[in-house]
Amino acid sequence: MSIAVTILGNSSAKPTATAHPSAQVVNINEQYFLVDAGEGVQRRLARCGISPLKLRAVFISHLHGDHLYGLFPLLSTLGLYGRRTPLRIYAPRPFGEMLECFLRLCESNLPYTPEWVEVDTTKHRIIFENDTTEVWSLPLRHRVPTAGYLFRQKEPPLNVSKFAIERYSLSMAQIVAAKRGEDITLESGEQIANEAITYRPYGTLSYAYCSDTNYSARLAKMVEGVDMLYHEATYEAKERKTAKERGHATTADAAKVASMAGAGRLLIGHFSSRYKDLQPLLDESREIFPATDIAREGETFLIEPKRLKL
Amino acid sequence: MSIAVTILGNSSAKPTATAHPSAQVVNINEQYFLVDAGEGVQRRLARCGISPLKLRAVFISHLHGDHLYGLFPLLSTLGLYGRRTPLRIYAPRPFGEMLECFLRLCESNLPYTPEWVEVDTTKHRIIFENDTTEVWSLPLRHRVPTAGYLFRQKEPPLNVSKFAIERYSLSMAQIVAAKRGEDITLESGEQIANEAITYRPYGTLSYAYCSDTNYSARLAKMVEGVDMLYHEATYEAKERKTAKERGHATTADAAKVASMAGAGRLLIGHFSSRYKDLQPLLDESREIFPATDIAREGETFLIEPKRLKL
Repeated sequence: MSIAVTILGNSSAKPTATAHPSAQVVNINEQYFLVDAGEGVQRRLARCGISPLKLRAVFISHLHGDHLYGLFPLLSTLGLYGRRTPLRIYAPRPFGEMLECFLRLCESNLPYTPEWVEVDTTKHRIIFENDTTEVWSLPLRHRVPTAGYLFRQKEPPLNVSKFAIERYSLSMAQIVAAKRGEDITLESGEQIANEAITYRPYGTLSYAYCSDTNYSARLAKMVEGVDMLYHEATYEAKERKTAKERGHATTADAAKVASMAGAGRLLIGHFSSRYKDLQPLLDESREIFPATDIAREGETFLIEPKRLKL
Repeated sequence: MSIAVTILGNSSAKPTATAHPSAQVVNINEQYFLVDAGEGVQRRLARCGISPLKLRAVFISHLHGDHLYGLFPLLSTLGLYGRRTPLRIYAPRPFGEMLECFLRLCESNLPYTPEWVEVDTTKHRIIFENDTTEVWSLPLRHRVPTAGYLFRQKEPPLNVSKFAIERYSLSMAQIVAAKRGEDITLESGEQIANEAITYRPYGTLSYAYCSDTNYSARLAKMVEGVDMLYHEATYEAKERKTAKERGHATTADAAKVASMAGAGRLLIGHFSSRYKDLQPLLDESREIFPATDIAREGETFLIEPKRLKL
């Protein structure tokens, strides 16, 4: 019940011979979500040992090439591999038009359907939901409409403690009722509060992806309590003005958001190609928010399950 | 006055972790031409030490993704690098529509103009020409309209031999006339044939790129005498039927075309991802056409100048 985030690429727009543009895979309970798809993402998936056929859905933050251009070759390859299940792609407007061009001009015979779901980048709301997981959009502040994504496990069903079952000699019907969240009335007439006999087998985990964006206090509020935060840090702290002008953040901005949000840990990335040595960027961020790491390409960052016993 | 061909990528459609899809750079007299642009081509250029800003024109054989998907990210990066000169892209229909979608939806602010030149894939004719170089289209037989490209140096201007100048005491006017290709009349009234006193300082070189295609005897005719031929060889010789059905060639097909054309040498590539060891493919081709090499990625193949002295 952990969340695993694999960094496929982490560089900013200007391509280099060693780094790859933005792309990540978020694995929640064996559901694989692709978040952004910079050029070469399918090759990066292969390198990281993740089959593209496992992808459950795709989330695109914004329509700049370094977050997008790997998607169409990937869609094409999924066709070659014989995918049949429709693939949902969450992305801001006008992604639908791009997809339409691609399907009409490049891939008119795909054996599956890529389905666009429009993301309103001005709203913070649930855009994906199933039994175990929900994904929220996070309005970001970039030069074009951009959304971050907050992945959240849902609360697992209640368990009834063995201790309580023995102590109160609970019947099967009473256990089922307790699992539904109800209080229990014993034969003696005694009322037992649900909280006294039930527990969640594990805590819910969350991960937020925020790139590209200016510093935003509002964003910190939206990701409050997140277990792991990826926040872009294109520039070093002293380049605050440049960052602001270009719709990007500094190391200090990222650390401040993590700190204000009370995040468990922070990953920084999307560094400008001007930085060859990343240690000074990491040091800057750690000064404000010690639990910072660089989102190194090829690494998988694990959010460990929290066991919450009665 | 050599021609240098750098293989950026050489694999067929299914992506692998080690090989790259089709792309080459043909350097003729320091003019850099990009031929096909599979995904990741800009990264491959960087790896091979070729600045994308040097590109003079682009030639796309056909609109399958493994020959095309790297082009749009490259066009985008050229914008980031501040290219101002228009860039001509030679490609079959409907490339213009793709380019229009790309420019409208992804890159509305490029500082230069990518200009589409339509290639009629049914015609063998000159599509590019300047003082030193011409490029011919080669109709190929694939599942979609596809053209190969024949790069040919033009004949260099005539030189007059020093020996003849001395022997006949040629005047400046006579030398200039001989350089224009005229016969010379000496003061004695004697006629000297132009061929007797002039020579070309070097021979013209040629290179043909043929991918993707079925075996074609007509193609062999069109590339007659070519110094170096790149011919796809997706399958081993015994897979002739599969190759034919899928619009591809075998090692034997490639070697036969090279042999019939009297090519100087043959490069084979575009191998199916099923082949891990390429030696058997090379051996098969060499049995028919000994001067075969594998177009290994990252390698540069040189066509050496032929010195033709009187």
